[in-house]
Amino acid sequence: MSPDASRLLPHTGDFQWAGVVPTDYKDSDDFREVTRRVFVGDQEEPTSFQVRYFEVAPGGFTTLERHEHAHCVVVLRGRGEVVLNCQTHPMSFADVLYVAPWESHQLRNPHPDEPFGFLCIVDAVRDRPQSVSCA
Amino acid sequence: MSPDASRLLPHTGDFQWAGVVPTDYKDSDDFREVTRRVFVGDQEEPTSFQVRYFEVAPGGFTTLERHEHAHCVVVLRGRGEVVLNCQTHPMSFADVLYVAPWESHQLRNPHPDEPFGFLCIVDAVRDRPQSVSCA
Repeated sequence: MSPDASRLLPHTGDFQWAGVVPTDYKDSDDFREVTRRVFVGDQEEPTSFQVRYFEVAPGGFTTLERHEHAHCVVVLRGRGEVVLNCQTHPMSFADVLYVAPWESHQLRNPHPDEPFGFLCIVDAVRDRPQSVSCA
Repeated sequence: MSPDASRLLPHTGDFQWAGVVPTDYKDSDDFREVTRRVFVGDQEEPTSFQVRYFEVAPGGFTTLERHEHAHCVVVLRGRGEVVLNCQTHPMSFADVLYVAPWESHQLRNPHPDEPFGFLCIVDAVRDRPQSVSCA
């Protein structure tokens, strides 16, 4: 696919998209059971942002981290929770989260029944996350 | 709300969000029955992008337009269609659309039963759309 041509990525059911392959979340060991799909941002698009879809399997969690860049999360699938500045808030379909610069955050799926899936929109150019701890 | 503090915007059901007020889509007369909500981008956030939610009522449509900036659409509610380079494609839940620079596009809701709602993610700094025609 080319950044110069529009593309429609149809949702083919069960949170799969034609032509979009899930990949590993990242190269580190401080997360569990997370996959990543990139909708916009890995094909030299001219956008200043990237749009990704993350899915956290039951019992899984993303890295507890902080960074300078802000991001936006919108829930598409299931239920989960965000640990934001070490406080836990439930999240479910269509909830929107804005994470401000340097605020610590982690997305978790404590529910055994279904994956927790969400869009995560970030600046294409951004700083590297730092792992943190709430303990 | 401050760009320096994270915020959770819970979906309160029926595609309403606590603290998010729908506004007019834009100041022109070449669209019909479209509302806009801004999730990220109207509060001096440091992001290079904006995240908006548009809803097109039955019979409504956005402006048929083109512009240099690319954008990304993700369907959250109902069904509709995109007219992309003067060809019509159906869209429904979780379908993703990348609109490349200068490609003409319009989102329409021909279905009488439900609003057609979608996220639209764009660069914060962008050129002004130009109205076009498929006739």
